[in-house]
Amino acid sequence: MNYLGIDLGGTNIKGGVVDEAGKILREASRPTHVELGPDAIADGIAALINELEAGESFSGIGLGCPGTVDDESGEVACAFNLNLIHYDLRAAVKARTGYEIRLGNDANVAALAEALVGAGKGAHSTVVLTLGTGVGCGVVIEGRMLVGYTGAASELGHMVIREDGEPCTCGRKGCFEAYSSATALIRMTKAAMEANPESAMHAVAAENGAVDGRTAFTAKERGDAAGTAVVAEYVKYLASGVTNVINIFFPEIIAFSGGVANQGEALLAPLREEVDRLEFGHKYVKKHTRLVQCTLGYQAGLIGAALLAKQ
Amino acid sequence: MNYLGIDLGGTNIKGGVVDEAGKILREASRPTHVELGPDAIADGIAALINELEAGESFSGIGLGCPGTVDDESGEVACAFNLNLIHYDLRAAVKARTGYEIRLGNDANVAALAEALVGAGKGAHSTVVLTLGTGVGCGVVIEGRMLVGYTGAASELGHMVIREDGEPCTCGRKGCFEAYSSATALIRMTKAAMEANPESAMHAVAAENGAVDGRTAFTAKERGDAAGTAVVAEYVKYLASGVTNVINIFFPEIIAFSGGVANQGEALLAPLREEVDRLEFGHKYVKKHTRLVQCTLGYQAGLIGAALLAKQ
Repeated sequence: MNYLGIDLGGTNIKGGVVDEAGKILREASRPTHVELGPDAIADGIAALINELEAGESFSGIGLGCPGTVDDESGEVACAFNLNLIHYDLRAAVKARTGYEIRLGNDANVAALAEALVGAGKGAHSTVVLTLGTGVGCGVVIEGRMLVGYTGAASELGHMVIREDGEPCTCGRKGCFEAYSSATALIRMTKAAMEANPESAMHAVAAENGAVDGRTAFTAKERGDAAGTAVVAEYVKYLASGVTNVINIFFPEIIAFSGGVANQGEALLAPLREEVDRLEFGHKYVKKHTRLVQCTLGYQAGLIGAALLAKQ
Repeated sequence: MNYLGIDLGGTNIKGGVVDEAGKILREASRPTHVELGPDAIADGIAALINELEAGESFSGIGLGCPGTVDDESGEVACAFNLNLIHYDLRAAVKARTGYEIRLGNDANVAALAEALVGAGKGAHSTVVLTLGTGVGCGVVIEGRMLVGYTGAASELGHMVIREDGEPCTCGRKGCFEAYSSATALIRMTKAAMEANPESAMHAVAAENGAVDGRTAFTAKERGDAAGTAVVAEYVKYLASGVTNVINIFFPEIIAFSGGVANQGEALLAPLREEVDRLEFGHKYVKKHTRLVQCTLGYQAGLIGAALLAKQ
């Protein structure tokens, strides 16, 4: 049996027909047209479903969406960049297609995909951390997404790790996201460049045309002291948040995605070292959390939405 | 059918026969005798089982124990104050009584009891925070304890909320426990008393014979400025950790126990106010976490161990 996964974003609605093993069989996409309002978004989703259906009916349809969604009620509680506030998306899609869709937060369904058929395949539990503009997060325990009482759980990016620290988009100060996102890494890099005019980071940034999440890592590779210090500072905070995640969930796998995670072992090796140092009382535990890279890339959202429909 | 719950502590082993609804029918207790070694502890547990059995056989036996336990293997991985390190307690009890016991961390089984028959009865999910010498924690989601891959999960007390802050017993700095335990409150109280010789806290402490977790609350009731400031500082950090817990788990209930929680509404009312202020994006969520007091008191451990056996 095949399932349809839909990844509803601010620019495009992507759809993929996915088999039971999580393999994408065919894909399609169309513009979201947020400016036309909620019902136009539902129209677009319905058109995408019709296009991908092509004579075959799906065993289920799942949809991943930014913001807070309530799979119990079928409502998108709030997705600001889609202008959806308390919109009953399940009812809207059902009225247009006859299908009852399952709803998940986009980071949560991506984590579901990594847990079931990606980096965490076969594992007891998987936490996915996406180190991008923010810190996205999904938690999957024994095959089920952690969504909480409201659908809004798993927001590990908004766990304060430094009370009264850097301001966060959520209104609090010192969130994990404010120290471990690519945005935070760029902030640390720029501050270090200003303080260290001799640093190789200036040349690296000039070569790439801008300061980005790679600048400090590349400078470190070239033996630059200031770049090395930026990576160490970033890893220190990331390790603090990751150790919190271990103490809270003790998952079998923590898998990283997003821009900064593309550094691979240049990030993960020092991170593991720092986390080992911080882990508490765990020398008596025979099993340990493995820190790895995600494996599904941008397709995780589609696959996860489809696998949610399968549950 | 009745179940036996056992609460294995450093001083006493307590046992209770519990019915399906979580009611304790009869209890017994005997000294743990840690000094006689692991096998003597198992002997004591077996003797307690025999005493409470009294002709009736149990549908199951559950045991709550401090430290890290692995219910999968049956092993107590480490319980320092019991001198148990990698001790196969399930096998030891089975050899002596024929019963296969279920194992849980003591804070986790207490949370299971509160979730199923106490403060969280009927709720989707319950997090219990015990504000005592440390900050104990248990997380129950849809009736199941969160134990993680290793049995060592749910250690929310060891979530760093202030990087590089106050030293914690776990070796890290700035843990939730280092700011929200009764120990932390007493530290804050003593510091404020030293800085404010005119404060009513001095008189309150003299009346009680010592500075304790109630000193600042009582002084606040009497209109003392420094006592009021201590309570505000304590509530600020507690609210920070509690808001993290909401962003991570978004449970239906967070229930408080332990010494500081005995303040009841004097603690919970300002805490709710502060948490409401910190909650992020949740004005669009129709359901909210309720902050309440635990209802089962010291019996939660016994009842939870028995209810674990029922699962």
